[in-house]
Amino acid sequence: MTLKNPLDMHLHLRDESMLELVAPFSAKEFKAGVIMPNLITPLTETTALKAYKERILKACKNEDFIPLMTLFFKNYDEKFLEKAKDELFAIKLYPAGITTNSDNGISSFDIEKLKPTLNAMSELGLPLLVHGETNDFVMDREANFAKIYEKLAKNFPKLKIIMEHITTKVLCDLLKDYENLYATITLHHLIITLDDVVGGKMDPHLFCKPIAKRYEDKDTLCELAFSGYEKAMFGSDSAPHPLHTKECCGCAAGVFSAPVILPVLAELFEKHSNETNLQKFISDNACKIHNLKFEKDKIITLEKQEWQVPQKYGDVVPFMAGKTLNFKVAN
Amino acid sequence: MTLKNPLDMHLHLRDESMLELVAPFSAKEFKAGVIMPNLITPLTETTALKAYKERILKACKNEDFIPLMTLFFKNYDEKFLEKAKDELFAIKLYPAGITTNSDNGISSFDIEKLKPTLNAMSELGLPLLVHGETNDFVMDREANFAKIYEKLAKNFPKLKIIMEHITTKVLCDLLKDYENLYATITLHHLIITLDDVVGGKMDPHLFCKPIAKRYEDKDTLCELAFSGYEKAMFGSDSAPHPLHTKECCGCAAGVFSAPVILPVLAELFEKHSNETNLQKFISDNACKIHNLKFEKDKIITLEKQEWQVPQKYGDVVPFMAGKTLNFKVAN
Repeated sequence: MTLKNPLDMHLHLRDESMLELVAPFSAKEFKAGVIMPNLITPLTETTALKAYKERILKACKNEDFIPLMTLFFKNYDEKFLEKAKDELFAIKLYPAGITTNSDNGISSFDIEKLKPTLNAMSELGLPLLVHGETNDFVMDREANFAKIYEKLAKNFPKLKIIMEHITTKVLCDLLKDYENLYATITLHHLIITLDDVVGGKMDPHLFCKPIAKRYEDKDTLCELAFSGYEKAMFGSDSAPHPLHTKECCGCAAGVFSAPVILPVLAELFEKHSNETNLQKFISDNACKIHNLKFEKDKIITLEKQEWQVPQKYGDVVPFMAGKTLNFKVAN
Repeated sequence: MTLKNPLDMHLHLRDESMLELVAPFSAKEFKAGVIMPNLITPLTETTALKAYKERILKACKNEDFIPLMTLFFKNYDEKFLEKAKDELFAIKLYPAGITTNSDNGISSFDIEKLKPTLNAMSELGLPLLVHGETNDFVMDREANFAKIYEKLAKNFPKLKIIMEHITTKVLCDLLKDYENLYATITLHHLIITLDDVVGGKMDPHLFCKPIAKRYEDKDTLCELAFSGYEKAMFGSDSAPHPLHTKECCGCAAGVFSAPVILPVLAELFEKHSNETNLQKFISDNACKIHNLKFEKDKIITLEKQEWQVPQKYGDVVPFMAGKTLNFKVAN
């Protein structure tokens, strides 16, 4: 199986030693990745953004990998955005306090207040990436955010709005109702439900935000991905946390999937779909939606070869730790 | 505040060193407790039952505490039950594999197969305690068990059926539909929802079975308890697990509430109800339902006094660890 220019449209690389540990996994197997800006100090300045990009490129060690950089959403003025545009792939909006390092996020979705920035983004063709959850009951948070997505989609018809890491049938349906709504889907949400998190024993390594939902939600996500649906893009939301912050009281949210993405997707699509639809999901859809073009193509070959996922990489437990996978990325 | 003969109608005391650690908490503050039979080797023989009772009494160190013993449900013949009756308070039914040490539970609710045992229990006045969960999606397991409760209630009208540790509005409502259905309610399900387990950070110490549900479910449980509703009895389901089986990948299910039950209930009922209804919930309802009479009354006095719940008792993290409580059981 060969894939052309795999793209990870939602990726957490963190910083410092964690960056050095995790970046090579994505850099080796993906052509580009959309890098999340929720560092401990969220990225809101172009100087910080450029410096972070440099650190990422260094950690990627000469691999053919393009970090597509994003800023943390706040009210930016048009002049700032015009200047920053060339450094920027998109802007990521977090509701306040909704996930890791999001305390400085948005606490009101008052359209009038958001208008200057979102109109400027529409004009400049800068996509808005959204972590779409309210502060409601954990199983309702994403579905209850649908009305905010609708408000944004209606009020900013020229704005490209990406509903990030969708997990519910409600948002899968909404995607088809508004031309300017798009979505990313993670690997783990194609595989797990809440049953895997707390249905048997509790598994901190499958605890993430948004939390995995019901079987019918997972099935609808799979339908979108496996059919190669044009508005659905792969975005891993791979989010490493050291072991001591996972297996403890007050465990951090995030699944570290980077080391296993392509082999697991290959297996899933071989079983439930085909290579053509995987190519759409992993690259072609995103290229069309975002007009991405690359000077040089990166071709990744997956071979049928069993291997066992390590229990840990450094101090981080990966998704599928200890499991045997049937596909391997060829060197 | 004084309470007469507090009863814990659902209690896990485990065995060996764990029994010695946890039994004194219940023995000191309760007049009696219904002891769960799901030891590593489930209790299905009267000799094992008597021996376990002796170990419990020894661990209770001369406190005025009566262990009300239960057997693990299987098809028992009538002669066995007649003989065992005097040693027995009730029989506890677990669906197979549904919680800690329940692998030998019931895998089919075929009324014809259950009839001999359940008819004998009806005749002998032995209550049936039920862990009511199916193998469905974790948030639906209890509600989906309602149809089995209905089947049991209809087919065995003389059998006293206790729906243990109920967590959903569905079962709260069902309780009112069938004369022979009763319920126990835990302390933690009056306080937490799924949001406390996986809504913010993940908390293994609030992970239990049945899992905590939605706000409307919790509110309905509180209505039953706080109104002193006659068919609702307190049963803590206090279930200790050593720290290394909680804060790990594959964490065990159970909340260890024994050390804090009466102070926390006193605070809840002072705020939302009154002492009379607490007396009903903690003792009087159970005494009426089960015709319990005691030769000597045990009076527990609760004083207004702040104290901080320890982070650990031995190797077990208690419910409300580190929190400051306003009531304290007087010595």
